[in-house]
Amino acid sequence: MDLFEKLLSNQGPLGKHSDVSEGYFMFPKLEGEIAPRMTFMGKEVLTWSLNNYLGLGNHPEVREADAQAAADWGLAYPMGARMMSGNTSYHEQLEQELADFVMKESAYLLNFGYQGVLSIIDALVDRKDVIVYDAESHACIIDGVRLHMGKRFVFPHNDIQNLEKQLERATRIANETGGGILVITEGVFGMTGNLGKIREIAELKKKFNFRLFVDDAHGFGTMGKTGAGSGEELECQDQIDLYFSTFAKSMAAIGAFVAGDKEIIKFLKYNMRSQIFAKSLPMPLVIGALKRLSMLRDDPSHKERLWTIVNALQSGLKEKGFSIGTTESCVTPVVLNGTVGEAAALSKDLRENFNIFCSVVIYPVVPKGMIILRLIPTASHTLEDVSETIAAFEAIKGKLKSGEYKKEELALSFGE
Amino acid sequence: MDLFEKLLSNQGPLGKHSDVSEGYFMFPKLEGEIAPRMTFMGKEVLTWSLNNYLGLGNHPEVREADAQAAADWGLAYPMGARMMSGNTSYHEQLEQELADFVMKESAYLLNFGYQGVLSIIDALVDRKDVIVYDAESHACIIDGVRLHMGKRFVFPHNDIQNLEKQLERATRIANETGGGILVITEGVFGMTGNLGKIREIAELKKKFNFRLFVDDAHGFGTMGKTGAGSGEELECQDQIDLYFSTFAKSMAAIGAFVAGDKEIIKFLKYNMRSQIFAKSLPMPLVIGALKRLSMLRDDPSHKERLWTIVNALQSGLKEKGFSIGTTESCVTPVVLNGTVGEAAALSKDLRENFNIFCSVVIYPVVPKGMIILRLIPTASHTLEDVSETIAAFEAIKGKLKSGEYKKEELALSFGE
Repeated sequence: MDLFEKLLSNQGPLGKHSDVSEGYFMFPKLEGEIAPRMTFMGKEVLTWSLNNYLGLGNHPEVREADAQAAADWGLAYPMGARMMSGNTSYHEQLEQELADFVMKESAYLLNFGYQGVLSIIDALVDRKDVIVYDAESHACIIDGVRLHMGKRFVFPHNDIQNLEKQLERATRIANETGGGILVITEGVFGMTGNLGKIREIAELKKKFNFRLFVDDAHGFGTMGKTGAGSGEELECQDQIDLYFSTFAKSMAAIGAFVAGDKEIIKFLKYNMRSQIFAKSLPMPLVIGALKRLSMLRDDPSHKERLWTIVNALQSGLKEKGFSIGTTESCVTPVVLNGTVGEAAALSKDLRENFNIFCSVVIYPVVPKGMIILRLIPTASHTLEDVSETIAAFEAIKGKLKSGEYKKEELALSFGE
Repeated sequence: MDLFEKLLSNQGPLGKHSDVSEGYFMFPKLEGEIAPRMTFMGKEVLTWSLNNYLGLGNHPEVREADAQAAADWGLAYPMGARMMSGNTSYHEQLEQELADFVMKESAYLLNFGYQGVLSIIDALVDRKDVIVYDAESHACIIDGVRLHMGKRFVFPHNDIQNLEKQLERATRIANETGGGILVITEGVFGMTGNLGKIREIAELKKKFNFRLFVDDAHGFGTMGKTGAGSGEELECQDQIDLYFSTFAKSMAAIGAFVAGDKEIIKFLKYNMRSQIFAKSLPMPLVIGALKRLSMLRDDPSHKERLWTIVNALQSGLKEKGFSIGTTESCVTPVVLNGTVGEAAALSKDLRENFNIFCSVVIYPVVPKGMIILRLIPTASHTLEDVSETIAAFEAIKGKLKSGEYKKEELALSFGE
């Protein structure tokens, strides 16, 4: 049968709604400077959708550094893969500063986070090794695990008892094959805001021989006393064998890094396929990351402002009787009950009549009948933004309860 | 056994040479502006290692566009995945211009080429489908194929007779499973410079039902009358169902695109995991790509200058008795015979005493006893650069023949 005909007969879970959702729920355009107030379809909206946690994305100092770096270097340099012709002293300096900041011996830059995670996992294991990973891991982890030729076991999200069972199974297999065990979890889970139970996982090292890889995309810059992430927050950074973060959230850029002991980082540097066979991170992004890192490291006020907003938003929502699930981080899911159609109508109402733009997460990402409005507070938001939002949420909650959104049926998007 | 201990006992094919090669053959620093003359370890070298085919990487107009775009937008905008909050009119404009240029209905931008290719392949096939691919495909294609749960068959590089056999096998399986067939090849193979036999492959569509995906990373901008790539060169662009190119070569940036019929591009847009779950291409790279595209499309002189250099280099080398393998493109491999140690010594001699910097490809990438010096000519090179290089190559060839390099033993790098 023809491959394309087959594909086009089923557009996939997101594509099937494209006729009604494209340009609105899917691929919307948020225009203007990165800020809490941006323009959506010609109208100003208060946005809670951008992972610009520390507000660095549009900070004047960052903007100046980005502009200067691009003027100095252009966006092409360095050409080629890092290993071949794409290395510079700035890349190495950023690596050392990142390693120091997250309290690891060594770090290696990645040209993009998604493919970086894939290749980290891929480089670490062969068919003799066993991977054990959290069921709610991000797509890039899942894709990395999919590359693995050996056994893999998944444990229900943050279920340490079950993890222990999986580690028993993994150990039996690794003993047979002569392989090792890699455990993968996240620092902050991006949908729920839960922290990964890194401490409890690390405790299991006393019983089992494994190495722990943590993707801390949402924790880097937002968690821990110094902003060094979830391992610092949970006082077990030393138990994380490989620490990863993208630059796409707190660092408001692209690129990523992985940090750990010198020897294993060196191993990765020589063995990650997406890094060996693809272009190095362009210089303005490296210099831009140095600037962002210095700001988030040297000036705690960004994180303090972030948490002022997070705390106001989360306690305000709770006071008004909203469930914000089990979040332990900045990620703020507001849990409501309703159909997919109601979710769409409600979300449209929020955008059109309350000028609030946020992500809506629905079935199949969450169980049927559940609607999650996912808010990402940032250091750029104000306490007025918070009150305005809570008031709007109260209004839509009332309309949802009274059945007002039942009249409309619309297709829907889901959170990143 | 401990996973890291196991890993560190074998540093991998490249890592095992790191002690002698790091900073020199591996992770060298080419400093200064992107140009044929750059600085390596404090000394000016004539470099043939950068895929800056059209010389756009450091073109004043490109540099100005990059600087202006970064000043206007910063490097953070837009935040979030394209689908969620990372869409802009510029992204869509670039897509339309790319589609028009490569003579396809539609195109979709990719935040990075490597993960883009992985997710294109991943989105196109399920376990019922069969992949048939060229054995010399780039690492990103191999990794994409590795994600596939169904059958895959590989054909020896450009061997159409064998491909026909694989298509027979693939068809038998697809008929059983109700799946389709995806054939994958490249426009220009980056190591040898061979063109993929796209015409001959497309001819097989008369006998078999399959779709053809072509990665034209090295062909885009360099091949074809208008620079639209290998499909245009071979007059079969319409037979390529999905056309891909990275921006990392002729476009001298990062990012990539895939082009084809409107419906299939729409399908990909809603189903490529690395695009749904990772950040959109930053605006300055989009605007920078618009500028680069306009230059390579509207001003044929860049490609003309490139081919003046390519022709001078390739015919000059051949006149002097060098083998340049089977190249049909700008990629210029100079084939010599010698050991890995001789390759290292020769390459060092080239850099130290002849001030020429190029990639060296050795076993296991090529058979034992073969050394390939891989040259990437660009529009920025001069005819003097060409003569200087050919003279140097004659000298090192003489020294290689006389056994002079036998004395030294060094570890070595390989081509991107």
